[in-house]
Amino acid sequence: MPRSSYRLPKIPEMTIRRLSVYTRCLLQLEEDGVETISSQELAERFGLNSAQVRKDLAYFGEFGVRGIGYYVTKLKAELQRILGLDREWPVALVGLGNLGAALFHYKGFSRQGFRIAVVFDDDPAKIGRDVDGVPIFGTADLAREARAREIQIAILAVPSEAAQGVTDALLAAGIKTILNFAPTRLRVPKDARLKNVDLSIELETLSFYLAQTPR
Amino acid sequence: MPRSSYRLPKIPEMTIRRLSVYTRCLLQLEEDGVETISSQELAERFGLNSAQVRKDLAYFGEFGVRGIGYYVTKLKAELQRILGLDREWPVALVGLGNLGAALFHYKGFSRQGFRIAVVFDDDPAKIGRDVDGVPIFGTADLAREARAREIQIAILAVPSEAAQGVTDALLAAGIKTILNFAPTRLRVPKDARLKNVDLSIELETLSFYLAQTPR
Repeated sequence: MPRSSYRLPKIPEMTIRRLSVYTRCLLQLEEDGVETISSQELAERFGLNSAQVRKDLAYFGEFGVRGIGYYVTKLKAELQRILGLDREWPVALVGLGNLGAALFHYKGFSRQGFRIAVVFDDDPAKIGRDVDGVPIFGTADLAREARAREIQIAILAVPSEAAQGVTDALLAAGIKTILNFAPTRLRVPKDARLKNVDLSIELETLSFYLAQTPR
Repeated sequence: MPRSSYRLPKIPEMTIRRLSVYTRCLLQLEEDGVETISSQELAERFGLNSAQVRKDLAYFGEFGVRGIGYYVTKLKAELQRILGLDREWPVALVGLGNLGAALFHYKGFSRQGFRIAVVFDDDPAKIGRDVDGVPIFGTADLAREARAREIQIAILAVPSEAAQGVTDALLAAGIKTILNFAPTRLRVPKDARLKNVDLSIELETLSFYLAQTPR
């Protein structure tokens, strides 16, 4: 009889997102020379909810030490491992227009281990050239060149009308983890992991507060 | 004796963020011709948590109707009003490099009522020109030109090393609501509302899932 496989409990996406935030807080504490911190202090210092912090971390184990709290460097390293930030991920960038170029140069990605290893763009003026040493290919070569670099993650920065076609090409090439910046709804199969970045949501949280202020 | 002013209960930022998400879901339902929906159905259809939906909405009033659920169009309009999306906000964009240009053309902003009304950039090749009819000024003219357009919101897309200086200039010009794309920590006074967009957080939620997959 086959052994039943162990399954992780279903973890809410917001928990994952908060782990990223906690990791940044811990990095900052580490920079500031803080060695241990309680969930209460962590929450106060960064405007978090301490019960939420404990609940989020509890999905992954017991990290706190009674009477001490968390060891900053150790917890940071644990969270980085959980988030897959303890290794380098080769990433494909599709689309090298304004947004693609901005994302290419975005320092936050490489700092977290996301290395853009190949760029795809169908502009004949770009194909066959390179950008800071990273080669640019047309999307016709997507499957071959992505496989050669063991790409598992793609960043999509193409115009909305091109996004579905490129997504289908990525899926056909076995790339099922996609970060989409095109403001459009994409169809992907269930086993793909698509994340849409909606930049206007950030502005909306700001306009909320302005809207509350009497004029 | 002065009347005590009414204060809104402190609303978690994640609630505000989720209101944006709910608004998008409702827009989609409206497009699909759905007129009423229960919190349960809303949650199932968009992968939300129905108790969370009810709790988030309860901060702002009683929107559900017993036995019916929510009226899609009405709830959408209410949420848009709460989020300040029922009006147009003139926005200043500071920095017209790759990222600034991408944000300038980002359709999601104007669709939600955020209209870039003025651009600031210190590149002499850009000052005095315009982009799609929107004038470009140097940051030396920031206070004057922002005031002339009643700007309350700024989007910051300058290099990290320039970000604090521009922030100080924005604050001096009375602009206290800032969406920052520069991957750096900015110092602002308590009455300012600064939101840092960290694009790599989105990638990290994806690498989490990849990291869970056995290789």
